[in-house]
Amino acid sequence: MAALPGLIGLPAVGPPTEPAAAAAAEVIALLTALFVILVAAKAGEEIFRRLGQPAVVGERAGGFIVGPHALSLVQLNDTLTVFAEIGVVILLFQVGLEVRVDDLIRVGRPAVATAVIAMILPIVAGVGVGFALGTEAGTAAFLGLALAATSIGITSRVLADLGVLDRAFARVVLGAAVIDDVLALVAIGIVSAFATGTPLEQALVVAVAAVGIVGLGFFAARRLRGLRREAFTWPLFADTPLVPAFLIMLGLALVTAGVGLAALVGAFIAGLIVAETEARDELEHEIKPLALIFTPFFFAVTGAELDLGALLDPSIAILAVTLTLLGVVTKAIGGIVGAWSLGRWGALTVGFGMVPRGEVGIVVATLGLTAGLLDGGTFGAVLVAVVATTLIAPYLLAWSIPRATRERLGRKGGPGSVR
Amino acid sequence: MAALPGLIGLPAVGPPTEPAAAAAAEVIALLTALFVILVAAKAGEEIFRRLGQPAVVGERAGGFIVGPHALSLVQLNDTLTVFAEIGVVILLFQVGLEVRVDDLIRVGRPAVATAVIAMILPIVAGVGVGFALGTEAGTAAFLGLALAATSIGITSRVLADLGVLDRAFARVVLGAAVIDDVLALVAIGIVSAFATGTPLEQALVVAVAAVGIVGLGFFAARRLRGLRREAFTWPLFADTPLVPAFLIMLGLALVTAGVGLAALVGAFIAGLIVAETEARDELEHEIKPLALIFTPFFFAVTGAELDLGALLDPSIAILAVTLTLLGVVTKAIGGIVGAWSLGRWGALTVGFGMVPRGEVGIVVATLGLTAGLLDGGTFGAVLVAVVATTLIAPYLLAWSIPRATRERLGRKGGPGSVR
Repeated sequence: MAALPGLIGLPAVGPPTEPAAAAAAEVIALLTALFVILVAAKAGEEIFRRLGQPAVVGERAGGFIVGPHALSLVQLNDTLTVFAEIGVVILLFQVGLEVRVDDLIRVGRPAVATAVIAMILPIVAGVGVGFALGTEAGTAAFLGLALAATSIGITSRVLADLGVLDRAFARVVLGAAVIDDVLALVAIGIVSAFATGTPLEQALVVAVAAVGIVGLGFFAARRLRGLRREAFTWPLFADTPLVPAFLIMLGLALVTAGVGLAALVGAFIAGLIVAETEARDELEHEIKPLALIFTPFFFAVTGAELDLGALLDPSIAILAVTLTLLGVVTKAIGGIVGAWSLGRWGALTVGFGMVPRGEVGIVVATLGLTAGLLDGGTFGAVLVAVVATTLIAPYLLAWSIPRATRERLGRKGGPGSVR
Repeated sequence: MAALPGLIGLPAVGPPTEPAAAAAAEVIALLTALFVILVAAKAGEEIFRRLGQPAVVGERAGGFIVGPHALSLVQLNDTLTVFAEIGVVILLFQVGLEVRVDDLIRVGRPAVATAVIAMILPIVAGVGVGFALGTEAGTAAFLGLALAATSIGITSRVLADLGVLDRAFARVVLGAAVIDDVLALVAIGIVSAFATGTPLEQALVVAVAAVGIVGLGFFAARRLRGLRREAFTWPLFADTPLVPAFLIMLGLALVTAGVGLAALVGAFIAGLIVAETEARDELEHEIKPLALIFTPFFFAVTGAELDLGALLDPSIAILAVTLTLLGVVTKAIGGIVGAWSLGRWGALTVGFGMVPRGEVGIVVATLGLTAGLLDGGTFGAVLVAVVATTLIAPYLLAWSIPRATRERLGRKGGPGSVR
């Protein structure tokens, strides 16, 4: 890209490689897209909240409305995607900041149980659907794996919006989501070996690296406990801990993305680490304005990516609805069985928190399509089911979370014990 | 652009238009570029500050080092440019927040005088150089106009870094910079009419629109004085004034950019308006983390755009040095004459604050190149001179500002009267 003298004030020295006016117009167009998306997200949130609906669904609806599959006021581009990605990275960093690593380890048992059960059940269900449709074993396996992995972005936002990040069920969901992401990486590795002939050893190496990174992160969080604020502010450029912490967040997000985990897992671990230091309270304040500006892009851009056209084909729609229902029920059962110790509603909330699927499902389905194991219609149905889980989950959580909170209240016998 | 399922979690429904892995890799590459630029900016700032040098020069040096003309660790792209642009927009919004519109109007006389004189003198000097080189009148006029207009980003940052935004000389510089930008718009209109045959009436319409927008902004700031916080927080999505204010900032920046003014003039006016309301103190706190993260991109990206190769040609280097010296001296004289009422050092600081040139100079020079009135060598020399003014200004300001502050102290007779 050329320098943009018309806007940013300082040019490359040397003749511009494209007319200055055209380059400036491009940046203005990108800034306009950011503006439109942010306005749409906030307008959508406003309307949905006034109707008593979840804010996050409103932000996505706003993005959908101005997006390329509805009014086409904005086209998707790399810059919007980067804003969206930084948005979810900051969201998970912020969530990590509010979680104590010891609390997370304390719920290790239900978290592991939930992650494992809630990954096996959808695979079994998907395989069952595959056999019911009379497909071959490979297709059935792909269908199951595509429904297996959770994406924690939406649940994190709902938990934060409802102010329940400090509850046990929230910690179990977050812990299970991290484990889920590692398991999904293993699953993708196996699937890749199966579909594209990548050596299975490579998948194992990556899985070991992923486990190592997550383990190292938890270890670092415990070791760095009580680290003084000056550990962040010793550089002259750092009047406050924000910039160093932001760099740690971005760096760990890139590391986890580099080995194939979600970038948001790295950001969450960065939040956990920083939360153990003396800089925690200050960072919670400083990260908030960044989260307010960036996170709406994640939800609105993913809303803008929605294309509901695939639902017009009845056979795809029926398969999609079936997969969606199985996707919800299997995760709910996974939560109930795995996290039963939290009480009925708490366990159900954990299961509902695992409902949203995302990147991994798409990657698996794409691999299946590429390998010729899924046809176009089945592929489309998987994508619709993935999106549908993200639309349903906020409503399920809005229904179960107040009950889980009351349940806990009832058991412990008073409001004082809730937090 | 395709959806990016590998990273952001939610896909387009329908087959991906490019392999998911490739799209995810692209976003990771962009995030890595952001990370590298931010680390470089902060490392550069750290080193320069430890050496007693201006922070802003360090950020630019850091960007230059990792940029395409040195280590090539990052390539410039639209996303980086958008971050840079939002960075300077937030910087000027933040500066606007710290300025009272009445204080700005109060220094209207020296501000107008400085803007006018400091725009005429460089034109005269440029024309003089043109004639000395034996060029035709058109070339001489372009040379002069290219040296005329100030770009306020760097001066704003230096004023903020030194904590002197509340001084009279700072207000005069800011006011003069706004007037300067309007005058420059008129100058570009005239030059365009001259070089490309655009009707002169069009330039006049744009100039009138620009004056109207700036005037309306000042009027709005005075009318909205004391506006209650609830004017910002009535939407349910707005727990704090930040998001509505951010949208106002981005919106006004786009409006001014739309008529041909600098986006940063709109952001400055947005800051002025918001500063008159009850939300001011809260917004000053909330905008700070955004400024900490975004503004380094402006300086580091402009640093990365520097290509010092043109200086290797001696004839270009000599012309560039001449133009740079004239550029500094003419603005300094403009400040001294126009803002003499502030005292010697205050007036000199105003002049030094006007030294950095930017976008307008490049646009004018590009028009001259396109029209065949500037040859490649002269064009290169103008660009070098523009960049050189931005590198020199922080040092000039670091030298004059403490003296201007002491001068004021001496006159008013005590530290209590300084602020």
